[in-house]
Amino acid sequence: MVIKNIGLIGAGTVGFSFAKLLAKNKARIKKEFGVALELTRVCDKNTSRKNELEALGAEFCDDVKKIVEAKDIDVVVELIGGLHPAKEFIAAALKNGKDVVTANKKLLAYHGKELFTLAAENDCYIKFEASVAGAIPILKTLTENLSHGHITDIYGILNGTTNFILTKMTKLGLGYDVVLKEAQENGYAEADPTADVKGHDAMHKACILSSLAFGVFPDVNTVACQGIDAITAEDIAYGKEADKTIKLLGVLKRKANKLEIRVHPAFVANSHPIATIDGAINAVFVNTQDCGPFLFSGFGAGGDPTAMSVVSDVLDIARDSELRVMVPPGKEMPLVDIGKEKAVFYTRFSVLDKPGVLAKIAGKLAEYGISIEEVIQRERGSKDKHVSLIIVTHEAVANDLRQAVKEIDKMSFTKHATQVIRIEEFKQAV
Amino acid sequence: MVIKNIGLIGAGTVGFSFAKLLAKNKARIKKEFGVALELTRVCDKNTSRKNELEALGAEFCDDVKKIVEAKDIDVVVELIGGLHPAKEFIAAALKNGKDVVTANKKLLAYHGKELFTLAAENDCYIKFEASVAGAIPILKTLTENLSHGHITDIYGILNGTTNFILTKMTKLGLGYDVVLKEAQENGYAEADPTADVKGHDAMHKACILSSLAFGVFPDVNTVACQGIDAITAEDIAYGKEADKTIKLLGVLKRKANKLEIRVHPAFVANSHPIATIDGAINAVFVNTQDCGPFLFSGFGAGGDPTAMSVVSDVLDIARDSELRVMVPPGKEMPLVDIGKEKAVFYTRFSVLDKPGVLAKIAGKLAEYGISIEEVIQRERGSKDKHVSLIIVTHEAVANDLRQAVKEIDKMSFTKHATQVIRIEEFKQAV
Repeated sequence: MVIKNIGLIGAGTVGFSFAKLLAKNKARIKKEFGVALELTRVCDKNTSRKNELEALGAEFCDDVKKIVEAKDIDVVVELIGGLHPAKEFIAAALKNGKDVVTANKKLLAYHGKELFTLAAENDCYIKFEASVAGAIPILKTLTENLSHGHITDIYGILNGTTNFILTKMTKLGLGYDVVLKEAQENGYAEADPTADVKGHDAMHKACILSSLAFGVFPDVNTVACQGIDAITAEDIAYGKEADKTIKLLGVLKRKANKLEIRVHPAFVANSHPIATIDGAINAVFVNTQDCGPFLFSGFGAGGDPTAMSVVSDVLDIARDSELRVMVPPGKEMPLVDIGKEKAVFYTRFSVLDKPGVLAKIAGKLAEYGISIEEVIQRERGSKDKHVSLIIVTHEAVANDLRQAVKEIDKMSFTKHATQVIRIEEFKQAV
Repeated sequence: MVIKNIGLIGAGTVGFSFAKLLAKNKARIKKEFGVALELTRVCDKNTSRKNELEALGAEFCDDVKKIVEAKDIDVVVELIGGLHPAKEFIAAALKNGKDVVTANKKLLAYHGKELFTLAAENDCYIKFEASVAGAIPILKTLTENLSHGHITDIYGILNGTTNFILTKMTKLGLGYDVVLKEAQENGYAEADPTADVKGHDAMHKACILSSLAFGVFPDVNTVACQGIDAITAEDIAYGKEADKTIKLLGVLKRKANKLEIRVHPAFVANSHPIATIDGAINAVFVNTQDCGPFLFSGFGAGGDPTAMSVVSDVLDIARDSELRVMVPPGKEMPLVDIGKEKAVFYTRFSVLDKPGVLAKIAGKLAEYGISIEEVIQRERGSKDKHVSLIIVTHEAVANDLRQAVKEIDKMSFTKHATQVIRIEEFKQAV
């Protein structure tokens, strides 16, 4: 029987869930898969869960060397997150010939290529199912199944916090600040929500998806990324009227010799399955050339859901132990410059309600070759009171629109920067 | 490098797609997974695709022994379907030490236990991802991932043909016969649609899901199974009014010491994700105790989608080749007697529109302890003209309702057998 001795770094929410879930599933896994997964040692500076972990049969320590350098550890599970010292711990584990399982999306987005190369050099695995879409086994599915159908594009709801916030705003008609505060109070958002609401977390996950779906690790600093923190109740209200829902999307598309990767809020038609994904749920919608579209959804975060993917990774390592399969280090492929691409946009101007304003805006848009599909002004203002003027464009080059909007925003009748949200158009739908 | 020589039995739609998809993906699989998958030989009585298959590098033959007994074949792919001679071919392959991949749900539902035992005795795999929900890698996901979260129940749309028919009926307000005919003309339904429309195909798939999710192979003859052939435009219209959609569901639930397995049309609340799955798409909704709910959807049939799952299975066999993992032969667990369970029902009576009719029906229901939530009679009839009377019950024991309905159907004012459709209630939803 294959026996894997596991060393766990980090006994926080996910780490502790992993220890418990592994203990709960150990006997079943041994029976069904014929492998023994033993949590041998746990390392954390915080000793608050020492007793509970020891009760689960693990030795507790505060020296990470007892895990990454220990002869009796086969698999190192890193669940501390962040770039450093997680990177150094993983590198040390690989250099000592240990397989690694991690949920650290930021680390993989920034240093994945380097770590995968190091793993290959040392003939070790790095597995990271939990790093994208929590409990959904999307990485395994992309790699081992959907790849055979030639993946063409992916639309993901990759961040549960922002989807929770957008869902609350949509269902209750509330503003961003009110909902964020509530989400923070209920533990759905961090005290410092930047990584979530600015789209960084979703963008890191999009980079990992790219590496597996297309074999390309994009430079994380060049991926177009916009958050949800500027979305207002008014934008959401327009969506309801237009039978559309605002979602923070991670979009990946294979083009001729380029990849398109972008993370931003977008209006999605309510008839598309991705629009129906509500709350702290993640979803990944995958189109393939040969085998049609797929949708996968489930919890994207939380202790047990994330830990489940970590357990699966450890099991996969044990099951594949005689046949090492490496993630290819990744080929180079330029990214599409999103600004030069055409799309349909919703723009919300804040303007004085007086004759000639629409003419000036329309004129400036026309100057940049942008034509208008729809104009909506629901309230009446005055020559002193600003109102919202919503303009939906026909297909326009993104940079042209941004430039036109920039110039309009300097005109005396505008109050504040214009809101611009892409309206996502899908080639195919389930 | 691991090399697997594949023998394919059956060069029909799926078989030929498999040959093409394998050829298309061979180089990539070799590069990414380090295994060589070679389609060595194809057997079919029909020689119409002989040249095309030979052009793909495979030898063509009409003698199945050249596959199931051949020394140069490692993996036998069975894609002829049906119970016989598929069973004999697979048994012969296993006895000759060959791993087997099949898409044959009927065969596995009837003889799975026997064939898995034979595979274990001969230290061989049987893999069958394509047998349930076509391209969706649901079997692998259940076994290798979701199991660690303790699967509690599954709701599946497991048959694309019936989902296509129900979707058309719902969207266009058409009757069953009209839509079935169109589906047959467009290749969405077979000339003899019995296996699909009577629910047998979905039921076979539910039995396979049970074996993997719960380790229990139910006796296929004892699983409650009802088709969609009695659903009328009127039933669908009620659903629209009540914000519900009729779906042919495969339902599996783990109970204290029993399993509940049933296949039947049911009303599903439109707010549940499973209600949004339209057309020839399959979906599997899985609840777990520890890790929340999941939804997986994609094409459930068709050459390439089904073949993709076959390719994945062959790859998995090649990757796991040094560590054989057997599907456990399955424990025994009694099935819940659905008739003794409580549920909410929609009933549509066809009755004469005269005083006293409702009193008689309500009286008979009361006799069986069934109380009424809602009564709807939209049209006016007469003492000579029958009209539809819809009664939605509160929770009632299924057998009691059936018995009451049976007695009501004998009353002089009823025209034909009463329609009874369960209204599915979900504990959790994504």
